[in-house]
Amino acid sequence: MTPKKVITFGEIMMRLSAPAFARFTQTDRFQVLYAGSEANVAASLAILGVPAAHVTRFPDTDLGVAATQSLMRCGVEVQHIVYGDGRLGIYFLENGAMQRSSKIIYDRFDSAFARITTGEIDWSYVFQDAQWFHWTGITPAISQGAADVCAEAILAARKSGLTVSGDINYRRNLWQYGKSATDVMPGLIEMTDIIVGGTTDFENCLNISEKNFEKACQQVMRQFPVVKKLTSTHRESISSSHNKINARLWNGKQLLTSATYDLTHIVDRVGTGDAYMAGLIYKWIHQQSDQQAIEFGIAASALKHSIEGDVNLATAEEIELLVKGENVGKLLR
Amino acid sequence: MTPKKVITFGEIMMRLSAPAFARFTQTDRFQVLYAGSEANVAASLAILGVPAAHVTRFPDTDLGVAATQSLMRCGVEVQHIVYGDGRLGIYFLENGAMQRSSKIIYDRFDSAFARITTGEIDWSYVFQDAQWFHWTGITPAISQGAADVCAEAILAARKSGLTVSGDINYRRNLWQYGKSATDVMPGLIEMTDIIVGGTTDFENCLNISEKNFEKACQQVMRQFPVVKKLTSTHRESISSSHNKINARLWNGKQLLTSATYDLTHIVDRVGTGDAYMAGLIYKWIHQQSDQQAIEFGIAASALKHSIEGDVNLATAEEIELLVKGENVGKLLR
Amino acid sequence: MTPKKVITFGEIMMRLSAPAFARFTQTDRFQVLYAGSEANVAASLAILGVPAAHVTRFPDTDLGVAATQSLMRCGVEVQHIVYGDGRLGIYFLENGAMQRSSKIIYDRFDSAFARITTGEIDWSYVFQDAQWFHWTGITPAISQGAADVCAEAILAARKSGLTVSGDINYRRNLWQYGKSATDVMPGLIEMTDIIVGGTTDFENCLNISEKNFEKACQQVMRQFPVVKKLTSTHRESISSSHNKINARLWNGKQLLTSATYDLTHIVDRVGTGDAYMAGLIYKWIHQQSDQQAIEFGIAASALKHSIEGDVNLATAEEIELLVKGENVGKLLR
Amino acid sequence: MTPKKVITFGEIMMRLSAPAFARFTQTDRFQVLYAGSEANVAASLAILGVPAAHVTRFPDTDLGVAATQSLMRCGVEVQHIVYGDGRLGIYFLENGAMQRSSKIIYDRFDSAFARITTGEIDWSYVFQDAQWFHWTGITPAISQGAADVCAEAILAARKSGLTVSGDINYRRNLWQYGKSATDVMPGLIEMTDIIVGGTTDFENCLNISEKNFEKACQQVMRQFPVVKKLTSTHRESISSSHNKINARLWNGKQLLTSATYDLTHIVDRVGTGDAYMAGLIYKWIHQQSDQQAIEFGIAASALKHSIEGDVNLATAEEIELLVKGENVGKLLR
Amino acid sequence: MTPKKVITFGEIMMRLSAPAFARFTQTDRFQVLYAGSEANVAASLAILGVPAAHVTRFPDTDLGVAATQSLMRCGVEVQHIVYGDGRLGIYFLENGAMQRSSKIIYDRFDSAFARITTGEIDWSYVFQDAQWFHWTGITPAISQGAADVCAEAILAARKSGLTVSGDINYRRNLWQYGKSATDVMPGLIEMTDIIVGGTTDFENCLNISEKNFEKACQQVMRQFPVVKKLTSTHRESISSSHNKINARLWNGKQLLTSATYDLTHIVDRVGTGDAYMAGLIYKWIHQQSDQQAIEFGIAASALKHSIEGDVNLATAEEIELLVKGENVGKLLR
Amino acid sequence: MTPKKVITFGEIMMRLSAPAFARFTQTDRFQVLYAGSEANVAASLAILGVPAAHVTRFPDTDLGVAATQSLMRCGVEVQHIVYGDGRLGIYFLENGAMQRSSKIIYDRFDSAFARITTGEIDWSYVFQDAQWFHWTGITPAISQGAADVCAEAILAARKSGLTVSGDINYRRNLWQYGKSATDVMPGLIEMTDIIVGGTTDFENCLNISEKNFEKACQQVMRQFPVVKKLTSTHRESISSSHNKINARLWNGKQLLTSATYDLTHIVDRVGTGDAYMAGLIYKWIHQQSDQQAIEFGIAASALKHSIEGDVNLATAEEIELLVKGENVGKLLR
Repeated sequence: MTPKKVITFGEIMMRLSAPAFARFTQTDRFQVLYAGSEANVAASLAILGVPAAHVTRFPDTDLGVAATQSLMRCGVEVQHIVYGDGRLGIYFLENGAMQRSSKIIYDRFDSAFARITTGEIDWSYVFQDAQWFHWTGITPAISQGAADVCAEAILAARKSGLTVSGDINYRRNLWQYGKSATDVMPGLIEMTDIIVGGTTDFENCLNISEKNFEKACQQVMRQFPVVKKLTSTHRESISSSHNKINARLWNGKQLLTSATYDLTHIVDRVGTGDAYMAGLIYKWIHQQSDQQAIEFGIAASALKHSIEGDVNLATAEEIELLVKGENVGKLLR
Repeated sequence: MTPKKVITFGEIMMRLSAPAFARFTQTDRFQVLYAGSEANVAASLAILGVPAAHVTRFPDTDLGVAATQSLMRCGVEVQHIVYGDGRLGIYFLENGAMQRSSKIIYDRFDSAFARITTGEIDWSYVFQDAQWFHWTGITPAISQGAADVCAEAILAARKSGLTVSGDINYRRNLWQYGKSATDVMPGLIEMTDIIVGGTTDFENCLNISEKNFEKACQQVMRQFPVVKKLTSTHRESISSSHNKINARLWNGKQLLTSATYDLTHIVDRVGTGDAYMAGLIYKWIHQQSDQQAIEFGIAASALKHSIEGDVNLATAEEIELLVKGENVGKLLR
Repeated sequence: MTPKKVITFGEIMMRLSAPAFARFTQTDRFQVLYAGSEANVAASLAILGVPAAHVTRFPDTDLGVAATQSLMRCGVEVQHIVYGDGRLGIYFLENGAMQRSSKIIYDRFDSAFARITTGEIDWSYVFQDAQWFHWTGITPAISQGAADVCAEAILAARKSGLTVSGDINYRRNLWQYGKSATDVMPGLIEMTDIIVGGTTDFENCLNISEKNFEKACQQVMRQFPVVKKLTSTHRESISSSHNKINARLWNGKQLLTSATYDLTHIVDRVGTGDAYMAGLIYKWIHQQSDQQAIEFGIAASALKHSIEGDVNLATAEEIELLVKGENVGKLLR
Repeated sequence: MTPKKVITFGEIMMRLSAPAFARFTQTDRFQVLYAGSEANVAASLAILGVPAAHVTRFPDTDLGVAATQSLMRCGVEVQHIVYGDGRLGIYFLENGAMQRSSKIIYDRFDSAFARITTGEIDWSYVFQDAQWFHWTGITPAISQGAADVCAEAILAARKSGLTVSGDINYRRNLWQYGKSATDVMPGLIEMTDIIVGGTTDFENCLNISEKNFEKACQQVMRQFPVVKKLTSTHRESISSSHNKINARLWNGKQLLTSATYDLTHIVDRVGTGDAYMAGLIYKWIHQQSDQQAIEFGIAASALKHSIEGDVNLATAEEIELLVKGENVGKLLR
Repeated sequence: MTPKKVITFGEIMMRLSAPAFARFTQTDRFQVLYAGSEANVAASLAILGVPAAHVTRFPDTDLGVAATQSLMRCGVEVQHIVYGDGRLGIYFLENGAMQRSSKIIYDRFDSAFARITTGEIDWSYVFQDAQWFHWTGITPAISQGAADVCAEAILAARKSGLTVSGDINYRRNLWQYGKSATDVMPGLIEMTDIIVGGTTDFENCLNISEKNFEKACQQVMRQFPVVKKLTSTHRESISSSHNKINARLWNGKQLLTSATYDLTHIVDRVGTGDAYMAGLIYKWIHQQSDQQAIEFGIAASALKHSIEGDVNLATAEEIELLVKGENVGKLLR
Repeated sequence: MTPKKVITFGEIMMRLSAPAFARFTQTDRFQVLYAGSEANVAASLAILGVPAAHVTRFPDTDLGVAATQSLMRCGVEVQHIVYGDGRLGIYFLENGAMQRSSKIIYDRFDSAFARITTGEIDWSYVFQDAQWFHWTGITPAISQGAADVCAEAILAARKSGLTVSGDINYRRNLWQYGKSATDVMPGLIEMTDIIVGGTTDFENCLNISEKNFEKACQQVMRQFPVVKKLTSTHRESISSSHNKINARLWNGKQLLTSATYDLTHIVDRVGTGDAYMAGLIYKWIHQQSDQQAIEFGIAASALKHSIEGDVNLATAEEIELLVKGENVGKLLR
């Protein structure tokens, strides 16, 4: 029996990346993809075999069509996407190497998505046959409309009995429409079952300054009793080419820690958190344990570092094999 | 003795073009250039050996740097460019072929240029050692600020004794800041010596509905006594791949017509009007006749159709040879 | 109200084309697409806004996944595709230019599709909510199994009340499994409402040697009373780069002829017949006349010659404009 | 004096590799090469300056021509290649990175080579002026015909006084024509002087289950007295990007071990065993010792990991310098 | 029975061409080929199935190896090539379009070939098993050494009983070592059986100012009784993209004229004369008539215009079909 | 206040690099850049915000124009460049990986630069508004003319009161015009304030065989009292992909040593010494200490290893952050 749907909501941008290690000032071509944190989660889930639909607002141009088709290619359902005025947000990516950092320039203001308004999406229709709703802290940071629709969606999801997950993902450069994260985020987190975030996010969004992850999680849970799990990835950046990652999770009882992956030749750093999120959801909707979830999630994230683009193209089988340490780094014939 | 400078003013966008004949919905890469109508004129002139400086406002990011460097590469002076907040405007180009039209999607609202304000540019300093100022009808269509600075520039140019040329270039999809072309353009045209425009432009900008070019020009001149010459290119589009072009000019006394070029295998259609404009200015600042100017201008424009990008990379020698009908379409060793 | 679905059935191959005009013996890279005559029709229809599902059998490998995703990207429904043993058929394409012909090398024997067997597809389920079934003469030429499933599908389609169209498309190099076209095709044509084919096809498939199209059509109709319309495109190949095309249709009463298009700079010659077919179906399911159908179909086919790949990416609006002769070969801003 | 020829025999496939680290499901282009284990050995030898001819059977199409020309480019003699019906085998390559494995999808059944039959090659003519014949365990696994011709060739080689080497190279997914490796391989190995293979190969081909390499070699030698040397490379796969390799050889008296190479940034993993084999043959036909042979062979293999494609393009001088540890990883001007 | 060999002699350069229609000042990549007029003839002949060997002198670097391998790939024998000091000559190619001419920048002075000296090539060994020697007027223009070795070769060819052909091909920018064409060319032409050249060539090399081709040929024959045939192609350059070509030949009795080809979408203009020459030789060594030779030659040249690179990759079958007007500009499946 | 100009003098070549890790014998395309040691320093300085002008002599062709424009793009002033006869020097680059070394083939003899003669450059005009002159040991090795003009420039620089720096950079394969380094270099070094060089350079240019850097520096200073600082980078090449670098400097009083950078995934090895030099000059003209200079210089050089091309595109801000260890190897949004 196919599982019920996962619904994600958020902005999708055109990703324009300079080829290989070219700098912005030296390239005369860009690779083109369409990506966004929440849509990356939906696309990963679709590739893992989980029905997923993404909700967003696109400009009514060929670029909106192209972005829609990139979701369709991955198997994400697109029937709830709305189209209208405004532009397609863009982000420019320059890949770093060694000591040189990777750089993203966002050009996303006044997008078709930013102009979304409450009532535009029929959430009760969207949430039919769905079991999970996922949002991130990027959406409420974009515009008052986006924040309002995000709240509207979370509320509707709860009413429809869905599990709600939120990746706080605080971005300082957003939040320019007159509200701050601390104004908006508490109202969303208080309706969310599962939170991805670290102590810095808790501080920026909830004014919780505790630096110990476990204690900070306990504090969040006390404040927001709906929250049942908090999880976060930890990254050690030896260089742009070499990172180490693992994950930890507080479920109200235990602090679980995953295996650590040594990522020695990074191909693409973007979307690795979304790969983790998709891995978690995949395991939880298949009734696996928290430990299994973070092991699968962090292995998914590790594989994503070897894959070009924002979306994790690793299959469930490949991720499971990495969790077991089988067939790793071989030539499979 | 090197001639005195030509100054151009206007927005520069990032041009993202799908390779070869790919449609927007099927490409996964874009060619990147930086271009704008007025800057194209400056770049053409610099390549023709005429000192030229472009004035614009760029975002203070690596993309602004890249755009600036693309002007520097052509030899355009960039010392008067200002940098600030706002984004870099973008246009997306899909190349048509045969019956299929080429398509441009503009994404230029709220650019750093659109946020320009009067007083930001020290025009008297800009116009030192300059003899010519060129503007287009795109600029006053972008924002109130751009329109104001354009008027400010034209006025300053006249005060500094420069010749002023304006390419009316009416674009219906711009003009969204509350003013219409007929509100703004007459005030700019009345300070302009040389106008590029056709009868449709006259109608849209000046409410002159006369369809005969010569008569329409006479009407413009009666209304705007500063205007001394009006010129326009004429294009017959057999298909996206095959056009015929020529030019005509009314100088108050005669209607001059240029040779016609049969453009049978078009490589790049964009910027061909700017190539014409640069050709005119080149000839006029070298004290050549109107007939010589339009012959050189239309030959320049013809060659531009064979060159990738917005900027005409043809040299003065190549254009002169085409005017004379020498070395055309050969293999030069 | 969205129209009911169109169902297509047939093999999809990997298309490997040498870039630009490179010959097979000089290229070190191939462009990769996934295409097949019937799937091209489905993809065109999906892009025109008609719900379309394609039925095929793919190998159970990453290549089968990639081929499926290429259909999904265009909006073709893929839920009826089956997966199993066998390889993915391939065709290699070398683009000709001028006097040099284009070349296709097929490498499609023993594909997963060729191994399809009756009973593998639940046609009554496939034809729910469908109004049209389309097949081509390629399918029964591939293998006994493919021929049997094709017959099975046509029969089921008739039972479910669908309109059935068949593009005869005789290919001499196929038909290697022991049956000839004249053995198999009559049994399929006699259940088909609308036939695409020319006099050569009629001769090869039906032993009808009449060379006059109208008379030949009348003969087909006498022999196969179910057939209501016969149509064919006519192509004059001045060179690989320059063709002229038009279409004609016999509907039992009249011989209709479409406008002729002069295709002077061909970008991609493959799939142009499928574009015609999709155009016909589009018009007919929107209750348009035969003349409107062939005008739209041949205009669709003309535009396809300007588009890279097997699939016609032209929108209904673009095709309609070409039929009306508007916006042809312009630079649309 | 140029040495006498080395003859290799086996299938050559088209290699289609996704660029950089792209997955099969995300690439729209493939790099094209023509390669096969035995031909890779011939090509390496030709580049090392040893006359080498490859014997195979190609389809009589442009693809057969292209594959032939790729051998010619390396200097491999092609006059003994036969052409006929059947397709060109293909293999698809996806490059892994870090924890993500590389993947090969074979599409080689029913190739022109698989259809080869005894008598088609005039082996006595082939072996004129030859001193060495090399085969691999891939060939007898392809088809009964290929197995028969392989046996025919080995026998003829022995009769013509050539040294015979065989790289067992057991591939589980081949062997689908009704025979198993243990049916066929013993008959070939018993006519072969030098064997490349490890204990797993011995088990799969000879039912020798001894896990200690030296003891297993002794057992092979007891069973097949013609065999004089057995050698094998050992690979430690830290990841797809990072391997360590060395080689060992049993010559009936001693177990020799080579230096170990730390391969920290692998460019192309395929063909590295063939590079080793070519290195061995190169040294032995120049009358060098076994230790020199494996040192040269493993250094050749190490360099191959830094070279794109199946064929080792390193020169003898470059390999010798690596053996000596000179000029390693420098910028040579 | 394979025909006896054709020997060609001359310089091979690296060809660096800007992609598509890019100008030298805007490209950041070059396509790389290795080509030279005489080697192009040898390569064409090898592809047509005629054994051909090219003689040249290359630098003893990887670039000399690469150039050698490019000949090997086409099947040209390379055993007579010598290697030594000096550089590899280079030519840069910018493709024109429409009115814009194509441009070649030569960078060939002081090449390894220019440093060739008499005695370096053992011509009697080269001419074993050969029936034809071909040279061009480029070689004696390069250096005194090249001119001397060219004379040495022609003389040896005559002694060995070969037919000698020479393509005069006067290039004004060469001839910089102190001799003029009129100093050197008469001495070479007087030993040559078949001359390719037009009236301009005759004037520049032989001081024959007659403008009528037939009369000029008669004058050449009177002056150089060894010459038996003179032939020339005629080109009408409507533009860089569109040429018309035909050929004429004077055999002492008749002026023959070939069919004219309308080349409407030129892909690559370089090497088209060499394709003609190879076509002539091919037909003559197969004992065909002069008319057959020029028809085949000009058809070969026509096809070359559709093929990227200097070498004509058309097969004999393809050229014959074009002569007959069959399969022209089709899609061959 | 903008600092006064830095002037550099030397040859600029076309850099043709095989893509990724392709060998010369396998590539069919080259990346094109224009670069030279001294111009790389100027370009780096321009990017760091320091006014810099480069003096050279280019061929009067489109390639000279292209090379000039590549300097203009970086902001280097080009008004003192002279144009004339001779070719553009070229260097070919093959990127190594792991144990395989990178290779450069120079093709620079008889360039337009090599033909420069004294008096061609008006050095007193060049040195107006300048504070620093930089030369390298490559220039006097190219030709007598280049050596003479180098001496002429250094002398003029001293007269104009500029600081003079020289990067000795001994290249054995140059120095072919009849003079040796020991003939020429002492005369240049004795007029130079700051020397970049190691003990091998001192031996080859000055016959100083002392192997201890500090003692060797002291010896140089005794012999050449004008020299005030000597500095050198030290490189440990674990492989082509992995190096470690640091710098040391003797200022007459102290031997200073910089931090060491571990460069684990090298992107481009060329121009890293020039990046160091530019870093030093940048700091010294901003009155920073020797320790600050070498720390900034070596950090600049480290970043250059991550950047494609000869020129260091890192900004001053990026380099300073690396010196401080901030933002290293991150994803900056």
